[in-house]
Amino acid sequence: MAAPTAVHPEIDLSTAGELGQQLRVDSVRSSTSAGSGHPTSSMSAADLLAVLVTRHLHYDWDDPENPDNDHLIFSKGHASPLLYSVYKAVGVVTDEELMTKYRRFGSRLEGHPTPELPWVDVATGSLGQGLPDAVGIGLAGKYVEEAPYHVWVLCGDSEMAEGSMWEALDKASFYKLSNITAIIDVNRLGQRGPTDLSWDTDTYRRRAEAFGARVIVIDGHNLGEIDRAMRQATQDSHDQPTVILARTIKGRGFSEVEDREGWHGKPLPPEMAERAVAELGGERHLTVRGPKPDASSRPARPSADGSGVKLPTYSVGDKVATRMAYGQALAAIGARKDVVAMDGEVSNSTFADHFAQAHPERFFEMFIAEQQLVAAAVGFSARGFKPFASTFAAFFSRAYDFIRMASISRAHIKLVGSHAGVEIGADGPSQMALEDLAMMRAVHGSTVLYPSDATSTVALVAEMADLDGISYMRTTRGAYPVLYQSDEQFPVGGSKVLRSSDHDQVTLIGAGVTLYQCLAAADQLKADGITARVVDVYSVKPIDTDTLTAAAAATGGRIVVAEDHHPEGGLGSAVVDALTGAGRAELSVRHLAVRNMPGSGTSAELLNAAGINAEHIAAAARDLTM
Amino acid sequence: MAAPTAVHPEIDLSTAGELGQQLRVDSVRSSTSAGSGHPTSSMSAADLLAVLVTRHLHYDWDDPENPDNDHLIFSKGHASPLLYSVYKAVGVVTDEELMTKYRRFGSRLEGHPTPELPWVDVATGSLGQGLPDAVGIGLAGKYVEEAPYHVWVLCGDSEMAEGSMWEALDKASFYKLSNITAIIDVNRLGQRGPTDLSWDTDTYRRRAEAFGARVIVIDGHNLGEIDRAMRQATQDSHDQPTVILARTIKGRGFSEVEDREGWHGKPLPPEMAERAVAELGGERHLTVRGPKPDASSRPARPSADGSGVKLPTYSVGDKVATRMAYGQALAAIGARKDVVAMDGEVSNSTFADHFAQAHPERFFEMFIAEQQLVAAAVGFSARGFKPFASTFAAFFSRAYDFIRMASISRAHIKLVGSHAGVEIGADGPSQMALEDLAMMRAVHGSTVLYPSDATSTVALVAEMADLDGISYMRTTRGAYPVLYQSDEQFPVGGSKVLRSSDHDQVTLIGAGVTLYQCLAAADQLKADGITARVVDVYSVKPIDTDTLTAAAAATGGRIVVAEDHHPEGGLGSAVVDALTGAGRAELSVRHLAVRNMPGSGTSAELLNAAGINAEHIAAAARDLTM
Repeated sequence: MAAPTAVHPEIDLSTAGELGQQLRVDSVRSSTSAGSGHPTSSMSAADLLAVLVTRHLHYDWDDPENPDNDHLIFSKGHASPLLYSVYKAVGVVTDEELMTKYRRFGSRLEGHPTPELPWVDVATGSLGQGLPDAVGIGLAGKYVEEAPYHVWVLCGDSEMAEGSMWEALDKASFYKLSNITAIIDVNRLGQRGPTDLSWDTDTYRRRAEAFGARVIVIDGHNLGEIDRAMRQATQDSHDQPTVILARTIKGRGFSEVEDREGWHGKPLPPEMAERAVAELGGERHLTVRGPKPDASSRPARPSADGSGVKLPTYSVGDKVATRMAYGQALAAIGARKDVVAMDGEVSNSTFADHFAQAHPERFFEMFIAEQQLVAAAVGFSARGFKPFASTFAAFFSRAYDFIRMASISRAHIKLVGSHAGVEIGADGPSQMALEDLAMMRAVHGSTVLYPSDATSTVALVAEMADLDGISYMRTTRGAYPVLYQSDEQFPVGGSKVLRSSDHDQVTLIGAGVTLYQCLAAADQLKADGITARVVDVYSVKPIDTDTLTAAAAATGGRIVVAEDHHPEGGLGSAVVDALTGAGRAELSVRHLAVRNMPGSGTSAELLNAAGINAEHIAAAARDLTM
Repeated sequence: MAAPTAVHPEIDLSTAGELGQQLRVDSVRSSTSAGSGHPTSSMSAADLLAVLVTRHLHYDWDDPENPDNDHLIFSKGHASPLLYSVYKAVGVVTDEELMTKYRRFGSRLEGHPTPELPWVDVATGSLGQGLPDAVGIGLAGKYVEEAPYHVWVLCGDSEMAEGSMWEALDKASFYKLSNITAIIDVNRLGQRGPTDLSWDTDTYRRRAEAFGARVIVIDGHNLGEIDRAMRQATQDSHDQPTVILARTIKGRGFSEVEDREGWHGKPLPPEMAERAVAELGGERHLTVRGPKPDASSRPARPSADGSGVKLPTYSVGDKVATRMAYGQALAAIGARKDVVAMDGEVSNSTFADHFAQAHPERFFEMFIAEQQLVAAAVGFSARGFKPFASTFAAFFSRAYDFIRMASISRAHIKLVGSHAGVEIGADGPSQMALEDLAMMRAVHGSTVLYPSDATSTVALVAEMADLDGISYMRTTRGAYPVLYQSDEQFPVGGSKVLRSSDHDQVTLIGAGVTLYQCLAAADQLKADGITARVVDVYSVKPIDTDTLTAAAAATGGRIVVAEDHHPEGGLGSAVVDALTGAGRAELSVRHLAVRNMPGSGTSAELLNAAGINAEHIAAAARDLTM
C-alpha cells in the first residue's frame, strides 16, 4: 500500500479536481472489471466526494476506530465504486484490491458497503436508510458524547421519495442536529428513468427547509461552490442540520453516458470503459489525505460499567405485566452510561417512560416514526452504545427493512415490543402483533425472547444489553403472576421446565401469555389423570433444543404448542424446527395458534376464540394421549 | 333503526353544530360504556365530521356498494368512537349497537375500524396508512374510472411524523390527485405528550405546500371556516390534493379534559362522562343525511372479462427468468380491464415494464416508496381492481406493516418480488430477500408462491389475479430452463413431483432456484445408486400436505429441503409444519438454508457457500440414506 503523500493542512481545489477525475476513472475501471456495479451514479458525486475528503472530512484513515473521526455514510450505497475509489485515494485500499476484488466472492468490497470494511459505519443499499442512521449518530454526538465529530451523508435524489428520509430530517431538525450534513446528489435520473422531481432543486429546497434543514443549493460540479457549502455546513453557527442540494449530471465526465437514460447500474463494456478513461484524462494514482480530527476534544467511549445497576425484584405470585418489568429493568440498567433508550411516542404504554424519567439525558423520543426509531438505534450502536428501542410489537413491522439492514450493518440493537397478540383485547387486530416472532426470527443472527413473568423479563433485559446483533423481546400488556424467584437464572437459549415427573404423558409448550394457559391446562389434565410436562420457552431463538428433545422423548413425542401469534414462523415453528432438526424424530404435534382474523373483545374471549387458552390446550393434550 | 330525517338539499350550519355536540356526546358515551377507546381524540374532530357528513360527503348510506359514493377514511383510526357516532347520526348504526357492542367480542364496531363494516374501505389503526391508501383510490378515480367521487381522509397530527404520509402527499401531488382531501386534526397532543410540531400549523402548511398540496388552514371548531374549506376542496378548479389543516382542541367541549395531557386513549369514568354529557348539552339523537352522489356520472365497476387474455408460452429447456415470465404474463392478463399494476421504480428489473408498455393507462410508477406502493394497491383493491405491485423482494420488507394491515383491510392485492436470495449474486445482502417467505407466510390468509420456471410462473400469475387476500410471488433474477409443458396446470396449493419411482429412498424438496439444485442432486445420487424423489413446492402457502406426506411415507421420512432463504419461517419451515401438522410423523429432516451472512459473488459461489447447491443437497441425502 502506498504511503500517503499528505498535503496538509489543506489540499487545493485543483488537486481536488484531479481527484474527482480519478474517482470517476476508478469507478469506471472497478465496475467494468467486476462486470457489474453503478459507475454513472458514482460519477455524478465524484466532485462532491473529492472536495469532502480532501478538505472537510476530519478522519484519521490509519485509525478508523478513532472516536474523534467524522462519519461518512453513503446513503446511496449503490455508489460503492465511488466510495471504494475514495478508499484507494486515501491509501487504505490498493488499486489491485479495487480492480480484482470489487463485488467478487469473499471480498470485503461488496456490491453495497457493509461494515466488513472498518471505515463503514452502517450497511446501505436499501435506499433511504443512511440519513436516518446518521440521526442516531448525530444524537449520540450532540447529546450523549458531546463530541465535535460531524456526520456526512451522501444521499441519492431517488431516495428522497422514501418517507424515511423525511422522518430523518424531521428528527434532525427537532433535535437541532447541526452535526449532520446531507449531501443530495441530484443527478435527475433513477433506475428506470427520471426521478419524480428531476432537477427541480427549488422543490427539494422548499421541502427540506420546511422540514427544518438549512439548505444550500449548488452546482455539484463546481468545486468552489462545493467547498463553500461544506465549509458553511461545519463552520457557521447554526442549530439545524444542513442539506446541500447538489445539482449534478449522472455519468458526468464521459460524454457517451452523461445524463442518458438506460445507464443506471450498468458497468461500461471494456471498450467503452477505455474511451471513458481516456476522456476523463487517463488513469491517475493520486494518494491524498484530508484533515485529521481534533484529538483535543476526544469523546470518551461509552462506559459499560454496571456496578451501579440494581435490578428490580418481584415476589412470586404478584401480578406484574412484563412490559412494566421491562420499563423498571431498563431504568435500572440505565445506571450503565452506555445504555440509551428511545421510543415511538408510546413510552407510557411500553413503559420505557421509566427510563425516560430516570435518565432523561439518554432517552430520545422519536415520535410516531418507527423507521427512524430503529435507525436511531443503529446509529447509536455504531457509536458503541447499547440502544433499547421500544414501541408496540405490531409497529416494528413498520421498520422491518431497517431491522433487516441493521443485521447486515452488524449493529447491536435491542428492540422491545409490547402489546403482543390477541391478549391485548379490545383495541383489535391493527394493534395486535401476530407476525412479530416470525419476522424477528427470520433476521440473520437475531435473538428472540418472550418472557412470561416479571422476574424472567428483568433477567433477560439485563442480558440483552450485551447481546450481539439484533435482539428482540416481546412483552405482554396484561399483568400475570410472577412465576420465578428473583435469583433464578435465565440464560439466552435456555428454557424452564415448570412441571415434570418421571411419567409425563404429554409436553405443553408456551411462552408469554400462553405459558399461563399451559399451566392451567396441566392442572385440568391432572384432574383427568393425565400428567403433563410444561416448558416455558422464554428464548424462542436460540431455542433450547436439548430440553425440548428430552421432553419429546419423555412424552412419546406428544407435544402441544400454544402461541399468541399466527401459526407461521413463531413459537410453534421454532419448536418443530428444533425437534426435527435434531435427528430422527417421531412426533405427534398439536400446534395451537391464532388462525383466524381476531376482532375486539376481552383477553379471555380472544384467547378462547383463537383456540389457545387452557381449555383448548387441555383438549389437544387429551386427544393426543387418548 | 330510526328512519333518517333527511334535511336535503343542505343542512344548515347550526344543525351541523348540534351534530358536532352529539358526536362528542356519543364518543364519550360509547367509549365509557366499552371501558376503553379514545374519546378525546374523537372530540377534537367532531365539528370537522359534522360539517363534512352533513354538507360535503356525497354518500348514499343505504347503498355502501354504490360506486358513486365518496370515500371517508379515518387515517386516525383510533377515533373510531367518532366514526361510529357518525354512523349512528346517519342512521345506519343504532344507539343501542353503539352503546352495547363497541369494542365488544364479536362486534363489527371494533376498537379500530375495519371493513367488517360496509362503510369502511380500509382498516386503520396503524397510523400513517389511511392517506397512502387514499392515494390508490384517488388514482383509480382520476385515471382509470374517470369518476367524480372524492376521497376524504381524516388524519391525526401525530401521524404526520410517519414518513408514509409524505410519500402519500408526494404521490398525490405528482399525480395531481385533486380528488383527495386530507383533513388534519391538529389537536397538539399525542399519546404521551405534545406532538413534535404542537400547534405549529405554519410549519405543517409549509411542509404540505412543499409536497405539492393546496393547503387551507382553519380553526377546526369554526363551522363556517370548516364549511368554506371543504367547499373549496371540491369546487375550486385545481390540480392538487387539498390539505385542510384544522387547529383543534383535544377533548373539545368538556372543560375537565380539554387540551390536557394524560387523557389520550382513556375513556372517561362513568361519573365524569355524566358531567361531560351535561356540559355538552346532553344526549341528542339527531338523524341527518348529507348529499347523495350524482348518479348521472356513475363509474362502471372494473370488468374482469378475460376473453382477450393470451398467456405467453415457452418451450421446455429454454432459459427464461421467472421475473421475465412475470412481466410477460402480467402484460397478457392486462387485457382484463380490472388489472392494474404499479412498481417501485425498478420495473426494468421486475419486468413490470412489459405491462407498463402494453397498458400505460393502468400502470402507476410509485418511485422508491414501497409503503406507498403497497398502499396504492390496497386503494385499488378497495375500488374492485386487481392490483399487482412489484419491487425487489427484499424491499417489500419496507412495507410489512402495510401488508399486515392490508390483510386486516380484507384487501385483495398481488405482490411480486424479484431478485430473491443469494442467487442474485454480486449486489450483496442488502438486495437479497432472505426473510420474505417468512414475512409473507405469517400474514393472515396469505398465499405465497415461488415458481421455478417460466411456465409455472405464467399459470400462477393468471391465478393470482383472482385470489382473495394477500398473495405474494417470489421471482428469480437468473434465467433457468423451462421445466413444464405449457398446458401443465399449477393449482394454488399444489406441487409437482418431478422425479419419482416406487423405490425412492429420499425426498428432495426445493422451489425456485433450489429446485434445479435438487434435480441436479438427484442425478448425482442416481450415479451413487440412490433414488431420490424430487418435489417442486411452487405453492409455499397453502402447501401441498398430501403430496409431502406421501413422499415422506414413501421415503422412510427422509427429507432434504433446500431453500434460498434464512432458515426460519420459509420453505423448510412450511414443509416441516405440514409434515408435523398432519398426524404422527417419523421424520429425518435435513434443512439446507442460508445460515450465514452472505456477501457478493456469483450465484454459483453463493449457493455453494450457503450450502444449498446440488453438492450439498446430495451430501445431505447420502448422509440420510447411509
